Amino acid sequence: MSSPVNLQEKLREHRLEYTVLCAFQDDIHSLVRLASAALLWEQDKEAFLEQHVAPVIDKLLNCLRKTYGSYHLALEKISTTAILWEILALENLFLSDIDAALHNDPATQDPLEIIVCYPGFKAIRYHRIAHIFYRHQIPLLPRMIAELAHEVTGIDIHPGAQIGSHFFIDHGTGVVIGETSIIGKSVSIYQGVTLGAKRFYRDEYGKVLKGMERHPIIGDKVTIYAGATILGRIKIGEGSSIGGNVWLTEDVPANSRVTQQRYLSTFFSDGDGI
Amino acid sequence: MSSPVNLQEKLREHRLEYTVLCAFQDDIHSLVRLASAALLWEQDKEAFLEQHVAPVIDKLLNCLRKTYGSYHLALEKISTTAILWEILALENLFLSDIDAALHNDPATQDPLEIIVCYPGFKAIRYHRIAHIFYRHQIPLLPRMIAELAHEVTGIDIHPGAQIGSHFFIDHGTGVVIGETSIIGKSVSIYQGVTLGAKRFYRDEYGKVLKGMERHPIIGDKVTIYAGATILGRIKIGEGSSIGGNVWLTEDVPANSRVTQQRYLSTFFSDGDGI
Amino acid sequence: MSSPVNLQEKLREHRLEYTVLCAFQDDIHSLVRLASAALLWEQDKEAFLEQHVAPVIDKLLNCLRKTYGSYHLALEKISTTAILWEILALENLFLSDIDAALHNDPATQDPLEIIVCYPGFKAIRYHRIAHIFYRHQIPLLPRMIAELAHEVTGIDIHPGAQIGSHFFIDHGTGVVIGETSIIGKSVSIYQGVTLGAKRFYRDEYGKVLKGMERHPIIGDKVTIYAGATILGRIKIGEGSSIGGNVWLTEDVPANSRVTQQRYLSTFFSDGDGI
Repeated sequence: MSSPVNLQEKLREHRLEYTVLCAFQDDIHSLVRLASAALLWEQDKEAFLEQHVAPVIDKLLNCLRKTYGSYHLALEKISTTAILWEILALENLFLSDIDAALHNDPATQDPLEIIVCYPGFKAIRYHRIAHIFYRHQIPLLPRMIAELAHEVTGIDIHPGAQIGSHFFIDHGTGVVIGETSIIGKSVSIYQGVTLGAKRFYRDEYGKVLKGMERHPIIGDKVTIYAGATILGRIKIGEGSSIGGNVWLTEDVPANSRVTQQRYLSTFFSDGDGI
Repeated sequence: MSSPVNLQEKLREHRLEYTVLCAFQDDIHSLVRLASAALLWEQDKEAFLEQHVAPVIDKLLNCLRKTYGSYHLALEKISTTAILWEILALENLFLSDIDAALHNDPATQDPLEIIVCYPGFKAIRYHRIAHIFYRHQIPLLPRMIAELAHEVTGIDIHPGAQIGSHFFIDHGTGVVIGETSIIGKSVSIYQGVTLGAKRFYRDEYGKVLKGMERHPIIGDKVTIYAGATILGRIKIGEGSSIGGNVWLTEDVPANSRVTQQRYLSTFFSDGDGI
Repeated sequence: MSSPVNLQEKLREHRLEYTVLCAFQDDIHSLVRLASAALLWEQDKEAFLEQHVAPVIDKLLNCLRKTYGSYHLALEKISTTAILWEILALENLFLSDIDAALHNDPATQDPLEIIVCYPGFKAIRYHRIAHIFYRHQIPLLPRMIAELAHEVTGIDIHPGAQIGSHFFIDHGTGVVIGETSIIGKSVSIYQGVTLGAKRFYRDEYGKVLKGMERHPIIGDKVTIYAGATILGRIKIGEGSSIGGNVWLTEDVPANSRVTQQRYLSTFFSDGDGI
């Protein structure tokens, strides 16, 4: 453990004023909203991104440069134009995610309902944009994008997670997808599913090692039902279904069905509950 | 899967501008707040609803008429006065839900605390109002009411669910109650409980069939503990208790207790975790 | 059950106007934010608390006095200065919680990221302050602080819970920690974990008894994985690990590992899901 004094000094290095933080958060919401509007509705996407999204990105990056200092390598190297091209390339992914919701959810047939009311589509929109900044090793911003989506949707996707097309999260509250997760195409995930780490690796001083591959790899066309907890660098084979509330820490071959052991059933004799 | 081009054309048909959407969301929150104030506090409920709630409903319906076009049958037929009468009829249900919280939660005896601090009571308020519009087959609005409650409370109740009096959700984060669920009187549900579909029915072209009965039927006086996942058109008999974290896809007779299989217990020999 | 008429009369006694309620909620967020700023960043913490936090506490207590009447004993007795000293004493606890996140999460090494993006650290900040008011038996306020944190983070900690230093909640959505829980030092908890009551005690008239000890006692250095449900006044011994999705209602000795029964695994023969 670090001493309180050291920690407090480290804290003082990078202080984000409250008003700056609020503006920063508002700008993140605007970024995702405008980028989504460009990809989903606009005819001339490029011009719209240039005109409306570029200034927001500039503002966010400048705020980070002030907080982390001008010698931060990734913040030096990144260009807003490069980011715009990467956002433009998300168009088909966004459409594929809407399509997956239409294809999998019997409760709707209205794409507007998916865009406006589906927390899963909101979370994946925020994530796909956060992931761009994560790949450029930008500090704080990717994690803040993820956490703002988490606040609103209850879905916590680490910006490092790699997620294929046609991704569908239904309901979503409590979903956690860890930093080094790799998810194939046409995967469906329900509320409360965890793709997490089983154990952490520590160095000889007991310090936890950062960035190791430690989360699951999910094959194409896998469905994971509500509340399943899947931990460690394991592989769930293509086309498998994982039942609700399962605790799973081993590989699963393709086309498997994994379910919880049958429950115990008794009857009340005295009326006093579980 | 639909082609991206078709999907994008369909999206362009019904576009909701961002500023319109924000106003729409604010109006929904006002609707529920004012309707609740009328039912819980006001002496002359009818006059209060006429004066304060009717204009908000008019505004919401007009916005929908602009978005979905003037030929939408349900939007043509619905009258604000009819909605007001249905809201007025919720009074005893609202009181019964507060009463259920007072009766079941050892942590409070203050009704104001339940109204102001209980996410479960907030979620059921939004739901009972959303359900009125759902029965009138109004597009988008019922689902948006539900999703706004979901954002704030983490409780996701589809507006189609039929829920009896004295309903109590404690804590509530992660609760999901599907479209065709039927819940009896005096039912208590804890956080993370799912009443979901087990499988979807698809037509001969692989297209998912919308609106089929596919969610559980919960009898009177049933208690469902945290994290239980109950899937399919099954019946949980009156007075039963379902233990936490159970995965349940079969009928359960009245007065049953259902619990998870006993866990495995070992001890650490090397200190390195699960 | 109480009659609707009685309940409605009781409701009319303590009505909180909507505008007052909104101001009250804003003041709570300011209180936690300013108190945190004082403890984490300021050099002269005492002066900052006096100048910025004291007026907010005064405002909140005055609003409560208006709502609950001037004869409320706890509201009579409490002094803002006493509260300030108790907030000041939280400094090392706050630092220990940041330290625990740095020590346990391989996904970060930036304390600013923990302060700004970690819902677990947000929830424990709100809780440690709510707990001060709970110990002084202030009505409504502690529970509202807790519920505002719950809304934002999905983590529901009852203000009565006693929580030791170096507490780490990762992701956190769906965590519930009940009123009489006692948690040791250096405990780590993941999303969806419940520390709840197993049954309630009712008096001879069937009225639930308030305030009984009914939640778990968690020893030092315990880790509880995602979705575990732990109910009743049981003890989890020091250094134990509780696996994900376990349903646990019995004592566990020190250094135990508790996991769910092995799942069932089959393969698809007809392709139609779980």
